[in-house]
Amino acid sequence: MLSSLGYGATDANSPLARMSFDRRDPGPHDVQIEILYCGVCHSDLHTVRNEWGNTVYPVVPGHEIIGRVTKVGEHVSRFKPGDMAGVGCMVDSCQHCDACAEGLEQYCENGFVGTYNGEEMHTGGMTYGGYASNIVVKEGFVLRVPNALDPAACAPLLCAGITTYSPLRHWKAGPGKKVGIVGLGGLGHMGVKLAHAMGAHTVLFTTSPNKREDGLRLGADEVVVSKNAEEMAKHENSFDFILNTVAAPHDLDAFLVLLKREGTMTLVGAPATPHPSPQVFNLIMKRRHLAGSLIGGIRETQEMLDFCAEHGIVSDIEMIPIHGINEAYERMLKSDVKYRFVIDMGSLK
Amino acid sequence: MLSSLGYGATDANSPLARMSFDRRDPGPHDVQIEILYCGVCHSDLHTVRNEWGNTVYPVVPGHEIIGRVTKVGEHVSRFKPGDMAGVGCMVDSCQHCDACAEGLEQYCENGFVGTYNGEEMHTGGMTYGGYASNIVVKEGFVLRVPNALDPAACAPLLCAGITTYSPLRHWKAGPGKKVGIVGLGGLGHMGVKLAHAMGAHTVLFTTSPNKREDGLRLGADEVVVSKNAEEMAKHENSFDFILNTVAAPHDLDAFLVLLKREGTMTLVGAPATPHPSPQVFNLIMKRRHLAGSLIGGIRETQEMLDFCAEHGIVSDIEMIPIHGINEAYERMLKSDVKYRFVIDMGSLK
Repeated sequence: MLSSLGYGATDANSPLARMSFDRRDPGPHDVQIEILYCGVCHSDLHTVRNEWGNTVYPVVPGHEIIGRVTKVGEHVSRFKPGDMAGVGCMVDSCQHCDACAEGLEQYCENGFVGTYNGEEMHTGGMTYGGYASNIVVKEGFVLRVPNALDPAACAPLLCAGITTYSPLRHWKAGPGKKVGIVGLGGLGHMGVKLAHAMGAHTVLFTTSPNKREDGLRLGADEVVVSKNAEEMAKHENSFDFILNTVAAPHDLDAFLVLLKREGTMTLVGAPATPHPSPQVFNLIMKRRHLAGSLIGGIRETQEMLDFCAEHGIVSDIEMIPIHGINEAYERMLKSDVKYRFVIDMGSLK
Repeated sequence: MLSSLGYGATDANSPLARMSFDRRDPGPHDVQIEILYCGVCHSDLHTVRNEWGNTVYPVVPGHEIIGRVTKVGEHVSRFKPGDMAGVGCMVDSCQHCDACAEGLEQYCENGFVGTYNGEEMHTGGMTYGGYASNIVVKEGFVLRVPNALDPAACAPLLCAGITTYSPLRHWKAGPGKKVGIVGLGGLGHMGVKLAHAMGAHTVLFTTSPNKREDGLRLGADEVVVSKNAEEMAKHENSFDFILNTVAAPHDLDAFLVLLKREGTMTLVGAPATPHPSPQVFNLIMKRRHLAGSLIGGIRETQEMLDFCAEHGIVSDIEMIPIHGINEAYERMLKSDVKYRFVIDMGSLK
């Protein structure tokens, strides 16, 4: 076994703490990576505190991983020691269902294997994530990290980036389209950057008037304060697509009425308690759609990284040492981060 | 003015009663129709009782109209006296917005004119519907009624028919597709017939085990009792499209989970009180859609009538005399009708 050092939780009520654990030795198709940076996603916190009720302890979170390849199995062809590599939310999937065949492993009909708190397909053991010194991942789930991008700021692309890129592509954000991004957090700030880079007329919706300037800086053509009914009314029936990144329960109708006929609002966050039920009338009267989207497939994640390299896009990050993670969680709960924490894994040593 | 005799309501609490009223004289683009049959839609009852809060009294309901042309304006080219003609839910729209230009008058950006309780665009007076001896309608909103179809049983096609036909076409029901129809009422029974005729594998969902036989007779390939969790579970992740015709608040998640990845459930009924809020998770995990659809455009309504003629499809109806309308409303509230009441307008005399 390969020994690993990381930060994990042993129960729902304790802070994250230093722990040693084992990973499988790299097999013929595996890539072993020394982790340099790991982004901090709200899912990490949900899992650590067992807020989804499915956590198996001990758990080591982290699924926005950037590192350097240290070892490869004999059948690995795309990576060699010394290469930069990325790992996102998934480390395996069945590879034979229709979804996998289409490169949509996130919708694997037999369930993909999460980068942490997932059950390994072959060993049956649990997976441990990126708040750690190293990781071993099947080659097919390892991403090439373009040299053009700052590796630390690249980490959040692996979850926040692909979670917004995939729906923006699927619902065809681009020139001539008016696209809304609801919420300016880790996901939202990536949504704004990506929609802008795709050439869409990008409108940021935020509840905070003081985020206006930052929204424009990040690439929004317009910033609308969603609590201002008058500002909102000006945009009725005008959006082709709205990407809603807000997981807290809120009034979906306020945004549905802003969609054009046949427009779609896609949710990428699942609230812990339900949103108020949307008015069916708002769907019926304009043949509108309410949809959901989950991260993105591996092929599309690579496409996203290459797109980001081409457009010079990374995440706006605040770097923290690993021993600052518990404080970072508290700040994340207050949305006190612009816009993603990234752990400098060198601090583990 | 043209005098008309009909059944209408003068306030929300009185039964429908015989009344005389005036319509505009037919103008150069108008068709005057002697009404032979009029279907009874739940919207009629909602409007009569002001359940949507927008009723202007007196109101004469009815928007599933079949009759014979008695007079045409000088610029009318597609109809002549003696022709059979149909009128559905709309009698006018702006004719210059994008929706109208695409033949989607039901989504007219300036608001279509309803066949009753609508404001006439040119006179400013209110429109009166089909529980009446005659009607005057702009040629562009009058449908040709195929001779092959029984005219009485054809009446419900003008609302129940097009409301189900349009979404089935829009979301591509056809060979190789598995399509669900939720609810076996006026709309649902048309949905089953139409989806079957389009060649889709058609599954009827009903809460009543005793509707199973009728569902199969109407064309369903399978009938699933939606209260039976075991029966429902067999269909998880298998539907391309579900047309939900049930307006009463109910658990949408029970049906959302039956959709394949990227499948859509479309609602055609707006509940008076909201459905329980659907779980966002069920949209996210398979990139599913929840949508709405409103009747259909005039061009598509004609296409639907011609499709019905080709496939020998009409509504299953129970004919009533006009003086039986109040009793019919009470029975409709109890779903005690297979599957649509149609008024024999000859009974007015």
